[in-house]
Amino acid sequence: MAESWVNSAERIGADLHLEMAGAGPRRAELIRALREAVRSGRLAPGTRLPPYRSLAADLGVARNTVADAYAELVAEGWLTARQGSGTRVAERAEPLGARARVPKKAPPRARGPRHDLRQGTPDASSFPRAAWLASYRRALQQAPNEAFGPGDPAGRIELRRALTEYLARARGVRTEPERIVVCSGFAHALRLLFAGTGGVLRGPLAVESYGLGFHRELLAAASVRTVPLPLDGDGALVGELGRERAVLLTPAHQFPTGGPLHPSRRAAAVDWARARGGVILEDDYDGEFRYDRKPVGAVQGLDPERVIHIGSVSKSLSPALRLGWMVLPERYVDGVLAVKGEREAWASVLDQLTLADFIVSGSYDRHVRRMRQRYRVRRDRLVAALATHAPHVEVTGIAAGLHAVLRLPPGTEQSVVKAAVWQGVALDGLAEFRHPAATMSAPDGIVVGYATPAEHAYGAALDALCGALPPR
Amino acid sequence: MAESWVNSAERIGADLHLEMAGAGPRRAELIRALREAVRSGRLAPGTRLPPYRSLAADLGVARNTVADAYAELVAEGWLTARQGSGTRVAERAEPLGARARVPKKAPPRARGPRHDLRQGTPDASSFPRAAWLASYRRALQQAPNEAFGPGDPAGRIELRRALTEYLARARGVRTEPERIVVCSGFAHALRLLFAGTGGVLRGPLAVESYGLGFHRELLAAASVRTVPLPLDGDGALVGELGRERAVLLTPAHQFPTGGPLHPSRRAAAVDWARARGGVILEDDYDGEFRYDRKPVGAVQGLDPERVIHIGSVSKSLSPALRLGWMVLPERYVDGVLAVKGEREAWASVLDQLTLADFIVSGSYDRHVRRMRQRYRVRRDRLVAALATHAPHVEVTGIAAGLHAVLRLPPGTEQSVVKAAVWQGVALDGLAEFRHPAATMSAPDGIVVGYATPAEHAYGAALDALCGALPPR
Repeated sequence: MAESWVNSAERIGADLHLEMAGAGPRRAELIRALREAVRSGRLAPGTRLPPYRSLAADLGVARNTVADAYAELVAEGWLTARQGSGTRVAERAEPLGARARVPKKAPPRARGPRHDLRQGTPDASSFPRAAWLASYRRALQQAPNEAFGPGDPAGRIELRRALTEYLARARGVRTEPERIVVCSGFAHALRLLFAGTGGVLRGPLAVESYGLGFHRELLAAASVRTVPLPLDGDGALVGELGRERAVLLTPAHQFPTGGPLHPSRRAAAVDWARARGGVILEDDYDGEFRYDRKPVGAVQGLDPERVIHIGSVSKSLSPALRLGWMVLPERYVDGVLAVKGEREAWASVLDQLTLADFIVSGSYDRHVRRMRQRYRVRRDRLVAALATHAPHVEVTGIAAGLHAVLRLPPGTEQSVVKAAVWQGVALDGLAEFRHPAATMSAPDGIVVGYATPAEHAYGAALDALCGALPPR
Repeated sequence: MAESWVNSAERIGADLHLEMAGAGPRRAELIRALREAVRSGRLAPGTRLPPYRSLAADLGVARNTVADAYAELVAEGWLTARQGSGTRVAERAEPLGARARVPKKAPPRARGPRHDLRQGTPDASSFPRAAWLASYRRALQQAPNEAFGPGDPAGRIELRRALTEYLARARGVRTEPERIVVCSGFAHALRLLFAGTGGVLRGPLAVESYGLGFHRELLAAASVRTVPLPLDGDGALVGELGRERAVLLTPAHQFPTGGPLHPSRRAAAVDWARARGGVILEDDYDGEFRYDRKPVGAVQGLDPERVIHIGSVSKSLSPALRLGWMVLPERYVDGVLAVKGEREAWASVLDQLTLADFIVSGSYDRHVRRMRQRYRVRRDRLVAALATHAPHVEVTGIAAGLHAVLRLPPGTEQSVVKAAVWQGVALDGLAEFRHPAATMSAPDGIVVGYATPAEHAYGAALDALCGALPPR
């Protein structure tokens, strides 16, 4: 009998906190403390209490004192005891919090739309669980002990080495591990670069007239003024860059309108940075996902001292990992590390080691190839559906990425977005992405993310989308 | 032969980026692009190139074109080809970066001291790799697909539920999952609470006269004025609290001087918060590690609406995980979530799910118990060594935590810290932790962290420490 208590203690390993502040007899004190713990809801109904000997050792009281206290509380109805199941908090004990509790708003995604065609999220059902777990196991088993201490704010050297090789090979980035700083994603990179007075960069920052409102808000919160650059079919008009200190571009795939930055514009942006002492922030958010035959390398390769190349696994693997990187010109490395602090405060070191293994073992390449193929099929289904049901709607920006832009007749964008809501489809109009101070013409269009729906639901999502488009 | 190429391609799964922008013949273009990739260092010496058929498919050229290009570059000495080993970049090809590379400063920890007795880090060699991996596997296998999408900024509900139960049981915290917000550690919690104009809290913030300089710097960077409270043997003199809006306390174990906040002071702090509409920030940094028989519960339990309870796994498991939590009064929840943003941008979702499993399965309790026992032994060895070699030095703050404070004769602190450096021991003097505006007396002392050294090196570290202490 005693043994079975011990075994259950081993199983739950419970660590029970009790305030034994009073000066009375130990047994009475213990009863009071336990009763209070149950009454206040700290010990929830059904919670198994530690065995006598364990609690007695913890509290420095005799085992019988605990046994007596439990028996008393069972008699009072606060606890229940059943042989083989230990002593538990009685089910009728109502926690304090239960009365005060109010239903909270569900998180935005939890009560999501029927068809989610918003951009920005990869197919969550395609996370390579088995391969990632294999890398995690290897990383955890091979990690030196110091990996479990405070982390280098630059990030694990294993990951920076792997990224150096991978980014050179796959994205045309020229760098070395010492110039890479790991972060938790693109937004974190922006925060680190523009952080307060100690920041590496200051505004004004030129941005593309269409981009993520979230980034503009983040920059505004950091007191960085943004100046919109007009866009045309060749990307941002970098010839209009002037006295700004930096420019934020999406050269591989303009976000969200979808084209690559023309080679002459890439060169012009680098020329501007050299002439003015400026710097280019290259947001390479989906550089791996190109479906045509012409790869578009990183602008960083043109001049590693004039471009900050920023990437993450948020599109290629999952935003749940919170892992990204900055490839920095040498002169910014110390400044960014100073902002990051003496130790890594953000990115999980185990995930960093896992990603390093995932890249080096080839799993990352295999995953990207597999997803590229899958997204290409989805893109083709989108194009085919539109060709059949809405041939008058022009589809653009489909050579790469996880989203397309559907151009709409002037003045129809808002009504299409509303019609989509009626069809149970969540998507965004182009106006959502427009810089408030943009002066270029404002084309009507919607941004359709084709990565998010589950595979089985994609066809229905396309049907619903087509139902929301304006008649010919 | 063809098969062996394919197999090696499967193994490396390489995704080679080549700029084929020119208009010339494909073969010449490919040679130029490959040569440039090697010359610029993008393709490092020894890198294995993709097999003909794979690269040919990628580039949309004939397989023979690739074979010809490779052969040409082998002839030129850029590549080498050996049967069974594929085509590789020649070893003599020097990357561009190699010339520009300058030796960088090693990160602070990499060239660490012989004996690291600085406080703040748990024993890195004790990370429970097997149990954590088991939890990771279960978490990864059981995670719903949506876990790989954008994360709820409050953190995973599984983790918040587990924390609610655990903190109630082990720390006396009264809360519910809806009032917990996951973050990446204590510093992140401070940043979120005091972030810019949208922040939940504003200064001035009362702090203990001794604390982490890092926290004071972080608060100063956020324009939060801190006001030092004097300390005595019962902890912070909370009776001196006035018009501050908030007070930051370490009630379980004053950091670094080491005592718990006296029950009357705990009550007085809560009374102040109620009377003035203030709030207590409770930094529960090592609440699990108590070695005496009197547990010290969280102040939060006294009034959940007046205390923000902040904890993390940085001391109990590892700072490498970057996982912490805030237990919030209801009125702050929406504000903190608004600062965090629409999606989780920081804490790894997979690590969150793993920690939830680790807690619920009982592994966390088992680990904490095991470490408590191990640290207790280390503490006892420290006390015994001092009793033998330096009986005149008073040891304080040893009822809990991972560090002790050695009181020194007036005026000797600096020379002892210097003597420690000579002995190869890294540790900090109390002056390091003193608020610059503190008015209380400034006792001489050193803070000795006893968790960091490896088990086999601890005895030598103690010898070196004793060698640095002043003679009787």
